[in-house]
Amino acid sequence: MAESMKGLKRTHRCAELTKGNIGETVTVMGWVQKNRNKGGIIFVDLRDRSGILQLIFENGSIDEEGFEKAAKLRSEFVIAAVGTVEARSGAVNENLVTGEIEVRVREIRVLSESETPPFPVEEDSKTKEELRLKYRFLDLRRPDMQRNLLMRSQVATLTRQFLADEGFLEIETPTLVKSTPEGARDYLVPSRVHPGSFYALPQSPQTLKQLLMCSGCDRYFQLARCYRDEDLRADRQPEFTQIDMELSFVDVDDVLDVNERLLAHVFKEVLDVDVTLPIPKITWQEAMDRFGSDKPDTRFGMELINVSEVVKGCGFGVFTGALDQGGSVRGINAKGQGAMPRKKIDKLVDFAKEYGAKGLAYLSIAEDGSVKSSFAKFMTEEELSALIQAMDGQPGDILLFAADKNKVVWDVLGNLRLEIARQLDLLDKSQYNFLWVTEFPLLEWNEDENRFVAMHHPFTMPMEEDLQYLDSDPGRVRAKAYDIVLNGTEIGGGSVRIHQNDIQTKMFEVIGFTKEEAQEQFGFLLNAFKYGVPPHAGLAYGLDRLVMLMAKADSIRDVIAFPKVKDASDLMLEAPSEVAVKQLEELGIGVLKSDKVSEGEA
Amino acid sequence: MAESMKGLKRTHRCAELTKGNIGETVTVMGWVQKNRNKGGIIFVDLRDRSGILQLIFENGSIDEEGFEKAAKLRSEFVIAAVGTVEARSGAVNENLVTGEIEVRVREIRVLSESETPPFPVEEDSKTKEELRLKYRFLDLRRPDMQRNLLMRSQVATLTRQFLADEGFLEIETPTLVKSTPEGARDYLVPSRVHPGSFYALPQSPQTLKQLLMCSGCDRYFQLARCYRDEDLRADRQPEFTQIDMELSFVDVDDVLDVNERLLAHVFKEVLDVDVTLPIPKITWQEAMDRFGSDKPDTRFGMELINVSEVVKGCGFGVFTGALDQGGSVRGINAKGQGAMPRKKIDKLVDFAKEYGAKGLAYLSIAEDGSVKSSFAKFMTEEELSALIQAMDGQPGDILLFAADKNKVVWDVLGNLRLEIARQLDLLDKSQYNFLWVTEFPLLEWNEDENRFVAMHHPFTMPMEEDLQYLDSDPGRVRAKAYDIVLNGTEIGGGSVRIHQNDIQTKMFEVIGFTKEEAQEQFGFLLNAFKYGVPPHAGLAYGLDRLVMLMAKADSIRDVIAFPKVKDASDLMLEAPSEVAVKQLEELGIGVLKSDKVSEGEA
Repeated sequence: MAESMKGLKRTHRCAELTKGNIGETVTVMGWVQKNRNKGGIIFVDLRDRSGILQLIFENGSIDEEGFEKAAKLRSEFVIAAVGTVEARSGAVNENLVTGEIEVRVREIRVLSESETPPFPVEEDSKTKEELRLKYRFLDLRRPDMQRNLLMRSQVATLTRQFLADEGFLEIETPTLVKSTPEGARDYLVPSRVHPGSFYALPQSPQTLKQLLMCSGCDRYFQLARCYRDEDLRADRQPEFTQIDMELSFVDVDDVLDVNERLLAHVFKEVLDVDVTLPIPKITWQEAMDRFGSDKPDTRFGMELINVSEVVKGCGFGVFTGALDQGGSVRGINAKGQGAMPRKKIDKLVDFAKEYGAKGLAYLSIAEDGSVKSSFAKFMTEEELSALIQAMDGQPGDILLFAADKNKVVWDVLGNLRLEIARQLDLLDKSQYNFLWVTEFPLLEWNEDENRFVAMHHPFTMPMEEDLQYLDSDPGRVRAKAYDIVLNGTEIGGGSVRIHQNDIQTKMFEVIGFTKEEAQEQFGFLLNAFKYGVPPHAGLAYGLDRLVMLMAKADSIRDVIAFPKVKDASDLMLEAPSEVAVKQLEELGIGVLKSDKVSEGEA
Repeated sequence: MAESMKGLKRTHRCAELTKGNIGETVTVMGWVQKNRNKGGIIFVDLRDRSGILQLIFENGSIDEEGFEKAAKLRSEFVIAAVGTVEARSGAVNENLVTGEIEVRVREIRVLSESETPPFPVEEDSKTKEELRLKYRFLDLRRPDMQRNLLMRSQVATLTRQFLADEGFLEIETPTLVKSTPEGARDYLVPSRVHPGSFYALPQSPQTLKQLLMCSGCDRYFQLARCYRDEDLRADRQPEFTQIDMELSFVDVDDVLDVNERLLAHVFKEVLDVDVTLPIPKITWQEAMDRFGSDKPDTRFGMELINVSEVVKGCGFGVFTGALDQGGSVRGINAKGQGAMPRKKIDKLVDFAKEYGAKGLAYLSIAEDGSVKSSFAKFMTEEELSALIQAMDGQPGDILLFAADKNKVVWDVLGNLRLEIARQLDLLDKSQYNFLWVTEFPLLEWNEDENRFVAMHHPFTMPMEEDLQYLDSDPGRVRAKAYDIVLNGTEIGGGSVRIHQNDIQTKMFEVIGFTKEEAQEQFGFLLNAFKYGVPPHAGLAYGLDRLVMLMAKADSIRDVIAFPKVKDASDLMLEAPSEVAVKQLEELGIGVLKSDKVSEGEA
């Protein structure tokens, strides 16, 4: 039986009450966290967004009917209570903001009852995620989820206000757009008015924000919903949100500057973390050489060392063979891990193989200086000692080497470095290490399609000094592209865009687009480029990932109100679902295959 | 030939320069508005988002090469110019913020050239809209469109900051949701992972925001993209934006209060308009009786007068016939329009017929007091004079009457009232009249389906005092629903929601849902309602319409960066479009009919 709140007004949220309110009559509303009868007095923990408040019900201060109601309360009932704030009669609860007070209730209304919830509403749920997501409305009541939603909201508000103050206009771009095959797979939306035609949901507002620069909007931003129909990984969602921006009449340093100040502002306001500016910058080449990754985690060292020169001509065929193939030999030094048992080393070898290594050469140095190694026997003492010296090998260290094509070596050692850091618990979530990675390659070679593809997208501007190689040696051309990395996660990236028709045309040529294909896919942009384009550049953050790192959450699903799971379905809404035949008829489409066995036809 | 801006930094936007900058060296960048050579001196109007600045190029202050470049500039070229701010040599231009100064240029770079644009970039374009939309990137350069985009951005930023300060959390809800047949037509998105299943794009986040209230989020807002696959009218778009909010533990007055303050804040900051609070409130019944509309324009009077009592038993069969059928006779008095020529009256009669009137009875009173009327002959002098008195008819007035079912009478006179106001130019766009319309009927009778349907949506709370009629006389039940009306346009609306399981069940019964249908469509919400629901209420604004009225624009397309036209297509992007066969195959769907004659198959 639900009672009405008619005639009552909430005066405070639960945790807004403090000692300063003692003596006041207040009206609070919320959910029953727990309820216990202790010597004829009923204590109720009332919960709302702000926190928990203790209510007490005692014969004398409340009438019998009210006392009876209180006695029958159960978890998650929604109640309103009117009473007086008092100093707590029992022991002060140091864990609660409101731990010094309680409210002596004189009127109670049960606004809504509750069945027994499928899992308790409490911090750090041990409930399995599927059940949490099916009952997301309950899961979101848990204090950690409430904090995550609050933090996400704060990040959004602070970002918007900061950018507005910096002269950015918030402009909404359409989400029913045109399908462009380049890039990830599009979500399609059939058109009813134009049967046989489809809209696409945007993978990003990239071309639209470039058009806004053509429109003279000067500085644009948007918290934009983006869509990619890809198979999901832990940190991917079919729909996700970008903090998206674009600026006219700027170069790389201008974009970096405003974004550093944005990040510093948001981290200061939300986490009280001081981000030291300027944020360090390294080139893509340096990132690969030192960390084997284009998104280095700089919270710890264990950097890669190129020992190709040192092992050149040594007796170990795996090393020299890799060098002969144009590859390299590099290593990392896991300081203090020299006593690593063979079993653990074998596991690291297996780990390395997952990333394409044929094997992993190791050399451990015992505290007494003696050496155990998978390859020492192939080397002279001089070669070995030169190698140990190059790696700064000390007693107690273990050195791990990969020898292969650069790409493989980087990938193996980059990931190995992270794996060892995880094992050694070197990754402190409350440390925030930012890093700009710049000067990415413009193009990468796609083995499958036997052509160069744009590493970022085909509108990325080459570095002026490398324009000369666009024809002769495209793989060598660096781009005015930059990523912002936080603790080894890429949280954003962008580039200066091509604004010159001739360079854009050349770029399409290099990635193997015919004029017709370029026109078909990006005609609207190329058309705009005929009528006066300002130099422009931009950047986009993955908001979900950014907030995940700030909230120290393990999954982006923990910072999204209603996320989807790996098969792209929403467990609470039960979407996607079958639809009425009439709906498909109106769209002029039919279902040709279906995973519902019994109802295969439209 | 595009030059690079390397080494240059913009120091100011064009219209940021004033007399205070005289003597300074500045670097400005923008588009060439116009270019003229006057006695060997070249004057260029440079335009950017901020406005227009005059540049002068003169031999001596710039080298020959630079002077030559300036001479060759054409409209919409993008240039960078370095020079010195000087007091204007020629006449001061009062129309420009920068009219007292000019910049004597010593270095110019042409950053991008332009073909001759298909229409001039200037205020108040006379270009037809189709061409403007095809070249939207040019159209948006026009100062009026720039102002509209700026205003929209301001409204969004101010709204967000205000609501954040009021304790609202901005929470993003998913846009790949479940299709729910009740309401408008959904846009569908085929699922690749679950062939034969579809997501729907949300018509609004209604149920999701109610779930957030179940989650204890307390106060939620979002500028939410919404989708409706309906045939478009002038003020509709397939995708549009709502300022969407929901509050827990509140009643009608709480929602109205925070929204009045929001509107007053935004109008003050953006337009410097003072909104007098509280905003007047009238019930739906009063709105219909006085204005024949549930969204009255109160910028002028000409209210409806119910003369049913006065004409009861008179000799005019049209009047008495309507009364006998349970209808009414009502009129409006178009003050001072007594001399309206017959032709114009006939046009009004035709206009009335479009809204369902069988005819329109009129009575005009000449300045000498003599009466001309379509029906006077059927009435006695006493009846006529009583009618004129009831209508406050004075010499020079014309009285117009409709007699029919209430619904028709309201619709006819409500629209006639507006039509006459338009003809008399009574609608001042710089006057902003707000009005709350409250106590809407909960249900309306749907003739086609022979059942009651929810007037707002099935989650709207009945007024407590009318709950008793839910079974016996559902049509009589009023809802805790409210609309906010600005100058005769509904800019927002909302309601207190049902939070009691038993009332919600009853509501579904009344609108003819079986338990299974209710469960099938809204199971996730009904499920949530089992676990403790707070009383909650909300409201949503149509952002596009709100900004349209604020910007005094004629169409919402003028306040949307990239709008769609009546057939729901985007003329610039050329969306929707055909897609690759492979894309459809992956989705397991086929095209059954197509409006492309030559390519009908998937």
